[in-house]
Amino acid sequence: MNRLIHFPFCARSRSIRIALVELGWDVHFEEEDPSAWRPDFVALNPACEVPVLVVSGLATVAGVYAISEFLDEAARDYDTSDEHIQLFPGDSVARAEVRRLVDWFHGKLDRDATGELVEQKLVRRVRGAGEPPPSGENLRAAHANLRYHLRYVNHLAGQRDWLAGDALSFADMAASGHFSVLDYAGIISWDEFPAAKSWYMRIKSRPSVRPLLQDRLLGLSPAPIYAELDF
Amino acid sequence: MNRLIHFPFCARSRSIRIALVELGWDVHFEEEDPSAWRPDFVALNPACEVPVLVVSGLATVAGVYAISEFLDEAARDYDTSDEHIQLFPGDSVARAEVRRLVDWFHGKLDRDATGELVEQKLVRRVRGAGEPPPSGENLRAAHANLRYHLRYVNHLAGQRDWLAGDALSFADMAASGHFSVLDYAGIISWDEFPAAKSWYMRIKSRPSVRPLLQDRLLGLSPAPIYAELDF
Repeated sequence: MNRLIHFPFCARSRSIRIALVELGWDVHFEEEDPSAWRPDFVALNPACEVPVLVVSGLATVAGVYAISEFLDEAARDYDTSDEHIQLFPGDSVARAEVRRLVDWFHGKLDRDATGELVEQKLVRRVRGAGEPPPSGENLRAAHANLRYHLRYVNHLAGQRDWLAGDALSFADMAASGHFSVLDYAGIISWDEFPAAKSWYMRIKSRPSVRPLLQDRLLGLSPAPIYAELDF
Repeated sequence: MNRLIHFPFCARSRSIRIALVELGWDVHFEEEDPSAWRPDFVALNPACEVPVLVVSGLATVAGVYAISEFLDEAARDYDTSDEHIQLFPGDSVARAEVRRLVDWFHGKLDRDATGELVEQKLVRRVRGAGEPPPSGENLRAAHANLRYHLRYVNHLAGQRDWLAGDALSFADMAASGHFSVLDYAGIISWDEFPAAKSWYMRIKSRPSVRPLLQDRLLGLSPAPIYAELDF
């Protein structure tokens, strides 16, 4: 049985969970908190990062970059049906645009906002005592950066059907991974970004995204709109 | 004419400079300091990050991830000669291992060590006054992390011909991007890591890496071994 080792509030893990469902993979999901540095997990991925995909009898594929490209290659090589989408659709130039945006969300958005906001708004609330005090300055910067990123998504969504072009792609999944986690904490003012909101409503209603909306962080309820499809 | 917009002491830029030479691309190199936030450059890449590859008459490809995959696809589609290496050689599993390590170097090594060390040891020395004071704690952590990464490269290089397996790959180029910049500052104690040193001597002697060894940072000379092939 193939296994995806993931952390529910890791945006990168979430993007791969969406991709696996979109591509029709049959996978057993296992939760792992990488901050625990479990020796068995470090042996599987020396970087001690989620997600990790264990393809039964074939390979251990570590990290969102290697997994997403591996899934795309497998689909191109073996999936001859028309029922599934492509993670990197189109020609080389279109695929480069998808990858630019994947890097934008999993790289820049993560550094600018998601990493800090998830740590401060979700993870520390659950872990509680023993954590160092939060930095108000970092938190304010992350909030300001998040607005900048929402403006950019609003700009893209106003010009294109999906974030990287005409077709749904892994760029949309990467973005959804981040925005769905931030939405759990209720810190996105969607009404200020109508094109982004319309895009997020569309992707949120896909069956591949639904399972994420069932995630619950122990000891912290989601914001009321978290699982609402019409918010 | 194709153009690569890069920054001489950006490890990601360096890895693409190596890849372009290995793949036989004819490219004009243009320097850009992304910290200047030049409007013309931001218009080209909204993330304001190097490297950016402008493929004449076809596309602007932004970021090391999109560029490396674009170059690999172009080589697979159009380069029928045997004279060039492949950036991601082998089957899907081998390619996943290359990508895991590319992410290791351009992601983890950068966050753990290169980013801080390049900023403190090279960039601030050149920019000089007006910069905030360095953090001794961050610098010590980065040095300790660098030793951890050198041990890991030493481990890989002791088991394999090249870092990701039997063949030279973009993982070696990514690693070389980082280690060559750090070497400019003379902060790698190669003799402690003999297998890593042997690997670096081999890649350093390739014609694709030689141009990097000619880079000079205005106002700061390289460490004596920087351009030595037998160090």
